[in-house]
Amino acid sequence: MPDKGTRPDLAAIRQAADRISGLVHRTPLLRSRSLDRMFDGKLHFKCEHLQRVGAFKVRGASNAVFSLDEKELGRGVATHSSGNHGAALAFAAGTRGTQAWVVMPANAPAIKKRAVESYGANIVSCQPGLANREAALQKLVDEKGVEVIHPYNDYRVIAGQGTVALEIMEQQGDIDLLMVPVGGGGLLSGSLLVIKELSPMVQVIGIQPALADDARQSLDCGKRVIIDSSNSIADGLRASLGDKTYPIIAKYVDDIVTVSEDAIRDATRLVWERMKQLVEPSAAVPVAALLEQRIELKGRRAALVFTGGNLDLDRLPWQKDF
Amino acid sequence: MPDKGTRPDLAAIRQAADRISGLVHRTPLLRSRSLDRMFDGKLHFKCEHLQRVGAFKVRGASNAVFSLDEKELGRGVATHSSGNHGAALAFAAGTRGTQAWVVMPANAPAIKKRAVESYGANIVSCQPGLANREAALQKLVDEKGVEVIHPYNDYRVIAGQGTVALEIMEQQGDIDLLMVPVGGGGLLSGSLLVIKELSPMVQVIGIQPALADDARQSLDCGKRVIIDSSNSIADGLRASLGDKTYPIIAKYVDDIVTVSEDAIRDATRLVWERMKQLVEPSAAVPVAALLEQRIELKGRRAALVFTGGNLDLDRLPWQKDF
Repeated sequence: MPDKGTRPDLAAIRQAADRISGLVHRTPLLRSRSLDRMFDGKLHFKCEHLQRVGAFKVRGASNAVFSLDEKELGRGVATHSSGNHGAALAFAAGTRGTQAWVVMPANAPAIKKRAVESYGANIVSCQPGLANREAALQKLVDEKGVEVIHPYNDYRVIAGQGTVALEIMEQQGDIDLLMVPVGGGGLLSGSLLVIKELSPMVQVIGIQPALADDARQSLDCGKRVIIDSSNSIADGLRASLGDKTYPIIAKYVDDIVTVSEDAIRDATRLVWERMKQLVEPSAAVPVAALLEQRIELKGRRAALVFTGGNLDLDRLPWQKDF
Repeated sequence: MPDKGTRPDLAAIRQAADRISGLVHRTPLLRSRSLDRMFDGKLHFKCEHLQRVGAFKVRGASNAVFSLDEKELGRGVATHSSGNHGAALAFAAGTRGTQAWVVMPANAPAIKKRAVESYGANIVSCQPGLANREAALQKLVDEKGVEVIHPYNDYRVIAGQGTVALEIMEQQGDIDLLMVPVGGGGLLSGSLLVIKELSPMVQVIGIQPALADDARQSLDCGKRVIIDSSNSIADGLRASLGDKTYPIIAKYVDDIVTVSEDAIRDATRLVWERMKQLVEPSAAVPVAALLEQRIELKGRRAALVFTGGNLDLDRLPWQKDF
């Protein structure tokens, strides 16, 4: 049983992998001849857009929900989420047979709201911004006594997300570089805890939209900076680091780089056109960093995480009025 | 060396598989929990949208180009094509180091024109419609003495396309039904020649847009019907059967079913949303047939071919002004 209050080590992340192995997919690691040629390196794409619920978030949510004891479970679980974690928690709660409440900002993509509902969870709508989300969640805790499963600032969630890096190293251990999109930092901190213990020679770089560059700013200032709201097209990366993810990232990450909105759109389209993989803009930020030469491959072997594939398909991310 | 004038048998298609094995990908056969549940069966998706050039057409074009002797090769190759065969022939010719000329209708998608050009082939533009295409091609033959590689009405091409079915049967021999999109019938006739010799108990159904239902009409009339031009959104399926593909299909196919334009759009979107695979509308017609209940799975195991993934991404297939 993982301790909610203890930072997970490699052993705890291996336990998480065992706990969720029957619940989530072992996703493929794709190659692309065309992108390898374009960026002069060897790229391995971890396809979490093909994961259950369409995003890696199902790993952390499942690890957390399946760690709860019967008493905690009986009152149900709740979270606030820009979408993918909400759907993931709804899925995990439904699979374990308990209720889920999901606080979502009013401007969250419709497809993400529908996904949460389709797994049988209850949506509680709020105004955008971290403070509004947290207030709405606290109200649920006070009124219903639910167990909060935070989208990233929770060691059980961080351990679950770390299983992505564990699988990458099992599938292709021979890499020089791991590139990870950064929102609240759950995936990056979980990945760092794996890599720095298992393969400390692998460089780990986090990528953020310049419009939501709290992690970059935090490293520059030496303390955690919070950006209260962002309009980046990478809607999964608008959150800021938490007090559990920030120290792990500050200690272990090799670099955080930022990318423009144009590069995120171009990268998303590039992945769609060349790889025929429908990833959401948040998932394309590592490719955006390659396009803008914020990261140089130069013959290196790299892995990156396609974090999710959930987006509104009523129009395209690169259409003007989006 | 295959005889251009002889209908290929299973042995000839196995030879084609050997000939092209270093040139084309062995594409994966994907599953989808969500579509299996929706249609109450076991579906296997042959991912030719992940093939070189983004379509199965590279198999037939490569088999044909790499069957030519040095003398035929020296004059170059030519074809008319709505796009994917043109790009495939350009790729195959470039790989073997000879020139390619591609006759394309003026209304072909821009992305398909760019693909042909990117492989170093010469585009010869013509008006839409089979007669116009064939006239432009004949002019090239008369003036340059090129070897014509027809997009489907060529036994070397049919043998190459048949390797799709060969691979499916190697990857998952245990199927009851194979569903294949039908344009000019190269893929369907090649698949039939494999299945009827290798696994005659497997039912094979061809699927066409109702707006380009020449194969359905041909079966009904007992003779080959030609539809001179079509505006179906499934731009890869606007061609009519040829005198080499029609007799094979008439003799062996279990059924040809047709689907509406709305169902093609819905099916394309369904595959994008649920499977995160970017297939072109032509590739989604088998799923459209399931949506419209033209084909019932009812617990059966089926394979279908995602024939390609090349489409203009300036707007979405289901956007109104498309």
